[in-house]
Amino acid sequence: MTQLTSTMKQYQDRVNAQLELHINHAHITSPELNEAMTYGALLGGKRVRPFLVYAVGSMLGSKLDTLDPIASSIECVHAYSLIHDDLPAMDDDALRRGNPTCHIKYDEAMAILAGDALQTIAFDILSTEIEGVTAQAQLKIINTLARASGEKGMCAGQVLDIAAENSAISLSQLEAIHNAKTGALILAAVQMGALTKVDIEPAEFDLLTRFARAIGLAFQVQDDILDITSDTATLGKPQGSDQGLNKSTYPALLGLEGAQQKAQDLYQEALHALSQLPYNTQLLELFSHYIIKRDK
Amino acid sequence: MTQLTSTMKQYQDRVNAQLELHINHAHITSPELNEAMTYGALLGGKRVRPFLVYAVGSMLGSKLDTLDPIASSIECVHAYSLIHDDLPAMDDDALRRGNPTCHIKYDEAMAILAGDALQTIAFDILSTEIEGVTAQAQLKIINTLARASGEKGMCAGQVLDIAAENSAISLSQLEAIHNAKTGALILAAVQMGALTKVDIEPAEFDLLTRFARAIGLAFQVQDDILDITSDTATLGKPQGSDQGLNKSTYPALLGLEGAQQKAQDLYQEALHALSQLPYNTQLLELFSHYIIKRDK
Repeated sequence: MTQLTSTMKQYQDRVNAQLELHINHAHITSPELNEAMTYGALLGGKRVRPFLVYAVGSMLGSKLDTLDPIASSIECVHAYSLIHDDLPAMDDDALRRGNPTCHIKYDEAMAILAGDALQTIAFDILSTEIEGVTAQAQLKIINTLARASGEKGMCAGQVLDIAAENSAISLSQLEAIHNAKTGALILAAVQMGALTKVDIEPAEFDLLTRFARAIGLAFQVQDDILDITSDTATLGKPQGSDQGLNKSTYPALLGLEGAQQKAQDLYQEALHALSQLPYNTQLLELFSHYIIKRDK
Repeated sequence: MTQLTSTMKQYQDRVNAQLELHINHAHITSPELNEAMTYGALLGGKRVRPFLVYAVGSMLGSKLDTLDPIASSIECVHAYSLIHDDLPAMDDDALRRGNPTCHIKYDEAMAILAGDALQTIAFDILSTEIEGVTAQAQLKIINTLARASGEKGMCAGQVLDIAAENSAISLSQLEAIHNAKTGALILAAVQMGALTKVDIEPAEFDLLTRFARAIGLAFQVQDDILDITSDTATLGKPQGSDQGLNKSTYPALLGLEGAQQKAQDLYQEALHALSQLPYNTQLLELFSHYIIKRDK
């Protein structure tokens, strides 16, 4: 295994163990609800957001113990958004990561509630004491997650995305959708990791923000590329599902080669931001490369 | 107007103005989403939870300015839960507070997302600086809301409630459902108000907790009574809707008179807890009486 894949595996195992712990605690009120939450949160996944929390935080000198609750909470928000996005009233997807989606496995009511409760548990986890972080910094971390995932970010992005189905949109509109829908949470992962270093220089925080914006968009461009170049078995979800919903994509607007060039440009932008940071940024460089080279 | 109704009106107006401000800020990403959130959050309602935050906090000497974000956030959580509970996959209600429910007015996808974003904005509001409260106390307030509204409280209660439809349950099971589904958030309102007094005595906190548990359950018993004794126009939702879903209710298990006696007992329990507090508890006494005497 390369350094990147072994570290990714380490962080995945770590956040999975944490999620299992947080969701399956003692004194459960409804075992069925916690089972559905576990199903939604622990069914595979690349754990991109937890990876960024761990990688950025570690790079800045924070302990993994400090980063655990932050990595878990952002993955809970991501998991809840996938469960709700898959619902019949939204993308109506039956398959996610190669398995039945939550509302297929259980039912719609349970999927809505499991998503709701996964969002809540994120804030439950984050508002419990975090070792090595001041209460002030903890409030900033909570606020960063809330701003990224609600009506200022992810939820608004999903509304814009649905509204754009079956309509021609411009490249800047597509970018606005993705910045809100997926970019905001990826940015939050990086910023939440960075906020564990209480005295981080504003200039360094800004460079990490630029890095995060670039890979956040690159991630989405590559997703769009994979939707047409990969196959269902590799993706774990139906290949061509964006086209099926008549969604605007980067390849549709730029052509396949144009989209690949766009991903490459964003990768270079990410590297440029990293190069100006006075830390060992190797892991983040490798990860940026992975973002635009992955096949699922 | 009596002291209670004028104070209730004052707090209602106050929290409505706050909600309007928080949801309709500058730089909105999706105006449609914020419109649906506003519709869900500002369409009338008794504002029981904000009232309790203001009344308990004021009684303990906290400023209304300090209580504003707390009152707003808990109402956002309550509003989100109503939007999601009304969805076709859940209670399938077309009418709420005399108006079309959110998914009828907009569509299901928008109702799911407006609910999601109302939950998020609650934690956004609470993690922004609150005047007069330490960061530590603020984290406790956030944690209180999260624990009350997720898989340890409200969401779990809704799962138990749905599971109990069309089945005979015992009085203790019914109480467990209501404690989680509605009681937890009413308790949280009182506790969040109490936590603004940073040095509150544990014994006083416990008495307020006992008060809150009693009125939380009394509120639900009275709701069940009104579902059979009131009419659709007064309720603003279809009369008899619990019976239509074959839900177990207090009148079904105890008879109408037995349920009325239960409400009366809980009222006395609330008064007893209040009587031991060294504060002016008159407003909370009047409110407890209102809980079991209201006709909608």
